[in-house]
Amino acid sequence: MTGRDGGADLHPIDGSPVVILVRPQLADNIGACARAMANGGLFHLRLVAPRDGWPQEKAWRTCSGADRLLDCATVHETVADAVSDLHHVFATCPRPRHIIKPVLTARGAAAELRVIGGRGLRAGVLFGPERAGLDNDDMAQADALVRFPLNPDFMSLNLSQAVMVVAYEWWTAADATLPRSLMTNETRVATKAELENFLRHLTGQLDDCGFLRNLPKRPGMVRNIRHLFQRGEVTEQELRTLHGMVTELAIGRRQLGRVEESG
Amino acid sequence: MTGRDGGADLHPIDGSPVVILVRPQLADNIGACARAMANGGLFHLRLVAPRDGWPQEKAWRTCSGADRLLDCATVHETVADAVSDLHHVFATCPRPRHIIKPVLTARGAAAELRVIGGRGLRAGVLFGPERAGLDNDDMAQADALVRFPLNPDFMSLNLSQAVMVVAYEWWTAADATLPRSLMTNETRVATKAELENFLRHLTGQLDDCGFLRNLPKRPGMVRNIRHLFQRGEVTEQELRTLHGMVTELAIGRRQLGRVEESG
Repeated sequence: MTGRDGGADLHPIDGSPVVILVRPQLADNIGACARAMANGGLFHLRLVAPRDGWPQEKAWRTCSGADRLLDCATVHETVADAVSDLHHVFATCPRPRHIIKPVLTARGAAAELRVIGGRGLRAGVLFGPERAGLDNDDMAQADALVRFPLNPDFMSLNLSQAVMVVAYEWWTAADATLPRSLMTNETRVATKAELENFLRHLTGQLDDCGFLRNLPKRPGMVRNIRHLFQRGEVTEQELRTLHGMVTELAIGRRQLGRVEESG
Repeated sequence: MTGRDGGADLHPIDGSPVVILVRPQLADNIGACARAMANGGLFHLRLVAPRDGWPQEKAWRTCSGADRLLDCATVHETVADAVSDLHHVFATCPRPRHIIKPVLTARGAAAELRVIGGRGLRAGVLFGPERAGLDNDDMAQADALVRFPLNPDFMSLNLSQAVMVVAYEWWTAADATLPRSLMTNETRVATKAELENFLRHLTGQLDDCGFLRNLPKRPGMVRNIRHLFQRGEVTEQELRTLHGMVTELAIGRRQLGRVEESG
């Protein structure tokens, strides 16, 4: 396959960045990384000098169905080879020293990766080996470093967890889900008129049974009841249930009334 | 220990939410969850009916140093017991049906958890068992559901990865790291005057060696050189290196000049 620039094209330009695992040690970690990538919509995996060789059956056992992603993974001898067809390279790294380099948060990196992909350019993210992380030469291959903000007192981040954070931020960067909504399934949020109708029914029954008999206190009590039902969104279906509850709770008193009338 | 409300207080009110693993199956997953919690600054772990009992040595082997978090974990028979001292309960869940409940993204939940913690209230987040997830009764114990936006075509999310996303969002919600900055370590970003000084040095040498001898093209060429060096931030240390490079590159010509003069 030949890229639009005439060079070797190791992945189609679909806008999503390549995940490059540098000298990964454990095959089950590679599988876990593939799973995390699929969770976040990343599909291009490259391995630089995996310690135990490749392919490794163990990886397929831990990828939880992301087999195709592992099937398509390519192996490279050096970081330079793995990034050669890319236009931008980011490197995840916990705390580098003596380096002059732009540093991005995971969220900042995801936003820039979306822009790079949107421009039709290929990007990749380097992840270092489990114990040591990326070395200085690896980091020198990158345009920018990515440092997740995480607890500085406990920096031991599992490799697949690091991939998860990047994949999650990549997906979230293009997601428009509202931070809070109400899942109503078959029903819908009630209108104020429907709520008012229920409150009228309720206070009517409460007047009838004598709960609101203290007339000076009645307005305040009615307001408090209203406050309770207006605190969160109520659905149309829940109002129907509430109507039914009030009606049924009042049945005894109505029957008692009929008995007394006839008695 | 007694809480400020007089009831049993299973964790101090430090503002961070409790992670509640409901019927977790694998001890190494519990360890991985503890590690992810520590990464994101969450320290209160509760286990509801862990399948293989508790404690399990395996968990300590996979927690990567988050031992204290496991040491302090409490075990509960029911979800109701595990949440009894909390004021707010969120439940992570992929795709519930027939439920009327507020739904938050992981980011939305993190923001609300920060507010809840800031008000001095205790919150918890329920995570379901590896295969089945939370059941309807579990979810009924929660005030709101949390659904991470993630690839809907690959929803198989590892338990510790789910905990990681929540822990990461919790930490990030209070983090003020700029999305992009320049790591300069010992040096600093150069001022425009310093950059100008270097460009003067460079163009002077380029004039001397004849690189800019095409006078009609000279202004454009000088501008293009300027564009290149102004594309990104340059540090004061890098400018000193560049000064040195230009000086050394020009040495040969100067020596040649002296030889020719004396010849």
